[in-house]
Amino acid sequence: MSSQFKPKDAGFKARVAQSFAEQAIMRTIGATLLEVMPGRVEIELPYDRGLTQQDGFIHAGISSTILDSACGYAAFSLMPAEARVLTIEFKINLLAPAAGERFRALGTVRKPGRNIFAAEGELYAEGDGDSALIATMSATLMALMPAAQQHEAG
Amino acid sequence: MSSQFKPKDAGFKARVAQSFAEQAIMRTIGATLLEVMPGRVEIELPYDRGLTQQDGFIHAGISSTILDSACGYAAFSLMPAEARVLTIEFKINLLAPAAGERFRALGTVRKPGRNIFAAEGELYAEGDGDSALIATMSATLMALMPAAQQHEAG
Amino acid sequence: MSSQFKPKDAGFKARVAQSFAEQAIMRTIGATLLEVMPGRVEIELPYDRGLTQQDGFIHAGISSTILDSACGYAAFSLMPAEARVLTIEFKINLLAPAAGERFRALGTVRKPGRNIFAAEGELYAEGDGDSALIATMSATLMALMPAAQQHEAG
Amino acid sequence: MSSQFKPKDAGFKARVAQSFAEQAIMRTIGATLLEVMPGRVEIELPYDRGLTQQDGFIHAGISSTILDSACGYAAFSLMPAEARVLTIEFKINLLAPAAGERFRALGTVRKPGRNIFAAEGELYAEGDGDSALIATMSATLMALMPAAQQHEAG
Repeated sequence: MSSQFKPKDAGFKARVAQSFAEQAIMRTIGATLLEVMPGRVEIELPYDRGLTQQDGFIHAGISSTILDSACGYAAFSLMPAEARVLTIEFKINLLAPAAGERFRALGTVRKPGRNIFAAEGELYAEGDGDSALIATMSATLMALMPAAQQHEAG
Repeated sequence: MSSQFKPKDAGFKARVAQSFAEQAIMRTIGATLLEVMPGRVEIELPYDRGLTQQDGFIHAGISSTILDSACGYAAFSLMPAEARVLTIEFKINLLAPAAGERFRALGTVRKPGRNIFAAEGELYAEGDGDSALIATMSATLMALMPAAQQHEAG
Repeated sequence: MSSQFKPKDAGFKARVAQSFAEQAIMRTIGATLLEVMPGRVEIELPYDRGLTQQDGFIHAGISSTILDSACGYAAFSLMPAEARVLTIEFKINLLAPAAGERFRALGTVRKPGRNIFAAEGELYAEGDGDSALIATMSATLMALMPAAQQHEAG
Repeated sequence: MSSQFKPKDAGFKARVAQSFAEQAIMRTIGATLLEVMPGRVEIELPYDRGLTQQDGFIHAGISSTILDSACGYAAFSLMPAEARVLTIEFKINLLAPAAGERFRALGTVRKPGRNIFAAEGELYAEGDGDSALIATMSATLMALMPAAQQHEAG
């Protein structure tokens, strides 16, 4: 599937992969980066008993973790090379229990802005050749440029 | 602080503690149950490098994990003994980077219903004697009664 | 465009139209029901200076009004004939100022349940042959069956 | 009740009142500005049959309209004199039907930023000497400074 967005930084794939590799939480839960396109990122997470809530399903917060990263990197892929990405807020709707062999989080930019990006996420549970939509996310991301980063730090 | 809610099940504290102990993810990330009151639950999480995003802050999804459990158990504390609790949706607003020695998620019921509960969460970053509000959550939870559970399973 | 959902009540179109006609607010703001399909409803609103915020754009709350009704009726179209529909919550992301000659709110069910429905909305601004996505909504709706309605009233 | 916030513009009350007066929708629905404090704004709306959904309750979108304006002006009250305010997103949880003689929307800033403000809203239904919380909102607002306004317009 092609993308409707034109990245500002030709090196966006390497930039996303590099930042993803710096998210220690992704290694901790066993998530991997499946695909990076302009404004569109997929992350995969195998089922792991250590990530579950009381009924043995993946905890909604862990579903949020990969969805938030998918949405964040979808936005980040369209930002200038020097920008950092920040999540302002997200909402997740849980449509079905997170049961499956593995989970695929797809983040897509709906509206890129100069500073503010709107993105949407879809979480699919997969196994036995099946794939089912089990959660949706709507997120707001911000591009932090170096000047603002300095101001923020100071 | 006292609570305005009267629990339907006198054994709510043990019931919440039992369910919390069954959330494998809480052990995985190192979260503990601090306090359980009717309609109000606190969870604590020490900072851990393995839970961070690319800038060394706790990942928003992990903040969501303890906030969701705090909101869910706040609602669960008011449910009948035989009910299960399900998160329908939540939204998190990230007010500041999750930097600190430890994090405290406070979940509070705003409106208990027969089936639907509205809860709010606040996440505080603590350290050096300081405490700062760094995220808020608004969540919708559902009480699943045994009849519905069976129907759902069938 | 066809729909993936099968309505439980063959008279869903008339039922939605009837309920829409009972929403006094729709007449007040000048909104009309464009289309009703199983799990999918469109509402149109012409621009009116009396519906604006301080910059002359349609107020976000009015955008919410037609998006919420579009999502609610999308869910209602899939409910049994005797059900009432209730909005539990919604979130709206405002992607661009609501400027245009008219606005089209499209509500679509993402996940129909026995009691709980997840729906998504898209708001388009139209004029001069153009159409632009200016807002998205994610909503949770509930089907209230007669027994619950009585209980609720009592 | 006093406020914890210090306004950047001493003329914030007049600035909010002026902008509120420019929101044509407020006159259309009959809403009035009750109170303006730093980071805190109240708006009142009398019940009007013309603002209702199919069951005779105030439509959730109209509840959103006064809550969004209350949150927006709460943020606006803390912005520099030359800023414009923009709603990025909000979520509303509907806790009870909007029945009552009049409704009071209270918007409060939770976190003021340089550009991004987080605010929360509470909607109360009043009548017969009673007041009941019937909805909560969480909103993200943005301060648009003149440079950005020009860029945006251009």
